Amino acid sequence: MSVKIDSLCVIGLGLIGGSLAAALRGANPSLKLIAIDHDADTLQSAKSSGLIDEGYRSVDELSDIPQVAVVAVPVAAMCSVFAEIKPWFQRCLAITDVGSTKQSVLDDLATVLSPEQSGCFVPGHPIAGREQSGLTAALSDLFQGRRVILTPTEKTRTKSTAIVTQLWQQVGAEVEELSPDEHDEILAATSHLPHALAFSLVRCLTQKHDGQEIFRYAAGGFADFSRIASSDPALWRGICLANKDALLRAINLFEEQLSELKSNLDTADGDALETMFRMAKTARDQYKK
Amino acid sequence: MSVKIDSLCVIGLGLIGGSLAAALRGANPSLKLIAIDHDADTLQSAKSSGLIDEGYRSVDELSDIPQVAVVAVPVAAMCSVFAEIKPWFQRCLAITDVGSTKQSVLDDLATVLSPEQSGCFVPGHPIAGREQSGLTAALSDLFQGRRVILTPTEKTRTKSTAIVTQLWQQVGAEVEELSPDEHDEILAATSHLPHALAFSLVRCLTQKHDGQEIFRYAAGGFADFSRIASSDPALWRGICLANKDALLRAINLFEEQLSELKSNLDTADGDALETMFRMAKTARDQYKK
Repeated sequence: MSVKIDSLCVIGLGLIGGSLAAALRGANPSLKLIAIDHDADTLQSAKSSGLIDEGYRSVDELSDIPQVAVVAVPVAAMCSVFAEIKPWFQRCLAITDVGSTKQSVLDDLATVLSPEQSGCFVPGHPIAGREQSGLTAALSDLFQGRRVILTPTEKTRTKSTAIVTQLWQQVGAEVEELSPDEHDEILAATSHLPHALAFSLVRCLTQKHDGQEIFRYAAGGFADFSRIASSDPALWRGICLANKDALLRAINLFEEQLSELKSNLDTADGDALETMFRMAKTARDQYKK
Repeated sequence: MSVKIDSLCVIGLGLIGGSLAAALRGANPSLKLIAIDHDADTLQSAKSSGLIDEGYRSVDELSDIPQVAVVAVPVAAMCSVFAEIKPWFQRCLAITDVGSTKQSVLDDLATVLSPEQSGCFVPGHPIAGREQSGLTAALSDLFQGRRVILTPTEKTRTKSTAIVTQLWQQVGAEVEELSPDEHDEILAATSHLPHALAFSLVRCLTQKHDGQEIFRYAAGGFADFSRIASSDPALWRGICLANKDALLRAINLFEEQLSELKSNLDTADGDALETMFRMAKTARDQYKK
């Protein structure tokens, strides 16, 4: 089923919203692209570069409700955006979001509307990102070959899910469906835990050793490992709080692994250490990236 | 002071030894390059490509002792190589190594010779590497712009240190001196700890979730973060055991950071989380890599 969409509004023209607008501009030039963002300079630059057709600083300034809306704000801001666009849920063909956690977004929406009233909402999460943020970091090919997870509920309209699926496929992504809980549990492990570890590692180094001095002795492995510690602190505060329980479970599981490593180190059990490392290498080698 | 060297022997033609040979071939074409490696195919391929002038499978096969020797074997193999080249310490202008730990290498050497007998030995560690290993992974520019740490002791001859310094400078590296203990403490934090965390993270993911399934949902951050988990398990067994005490201290410090994060998460203290993340980001942003 292919549905022709004439207008789409991106709420939040940051890394993800900006990259989606750029990708859609290329894939679907006739689509009318509207953006809402608090920052006037961002809107001005997006308009003058031709990235969007119309830009507004608040929802109230829009005269027509768009057919499709993509809420691309940090998870901590979802609730207030849902309140602002409340009337849209009765009019849009589909509304989706790009938040890194899915149950929290559904909980936020439930504070504004009942599930019956929000059948056009398709929770979504493109698994793509960069440690930089903002429109200047946006890339038109950010979603090419990337996975986008949709977590429709039993109240979500099939047609809305089809529209959002098609939207992401247009920009080169592979779309999959999971339950919100499955999504949150998996992403806690593959994304939120690595970020927590990277932030902790960098803190550990700077606190113990003399500030920046220690980084002079860091090689490529450290550079790769710690890159995500440059991610936006406010954004990650929101993500961590929104997925707190799953993240705490993931950290506990990680701590068990680290304990086992420590114990093998403490007893100088070389065979056990090598077996642990070999299992990790075998798994990592199969993941080509 | 510049010393003209005519012959250099690399013991162990893996990633580091092979990259050094390739870099020296370019920087100093008249230098006679000899290699010792257990693997006949590796030697054959290095000879036929012109990377080395002579290759031998054991130390005993060499007719002339080289002026300079670079021991480029895993730290776990240092001790047996030192025993094999024991007579060289009376004849070489300089002998150095490339091991990731420095006190363990000095301890290994001390089982073979007294400090007074090993004045030509300059412990060294190029902070450069890749998660791949072996000669096929070697790169002639691996040391370009990289730091090499030398940890001479009070018995090390000044002339030998100067020769090894010059050798690394020739291939584009920046040479610094530290004490063996300083080196081991710093590298435990910047290199050995990140490897331990990466191995543990990948194990944590594969053990909890259904094998490879979980990696389908991993994005770029995870790819970067876990890349070093593909490193050679036997090599890292040796490094971890050789620097066990400093690594255990680094892990304990890391665990304190992770505990603080968990506690802030548990109490949903968003301000404290954001402050932690912001400190990490500020530190990481200043490290450009």
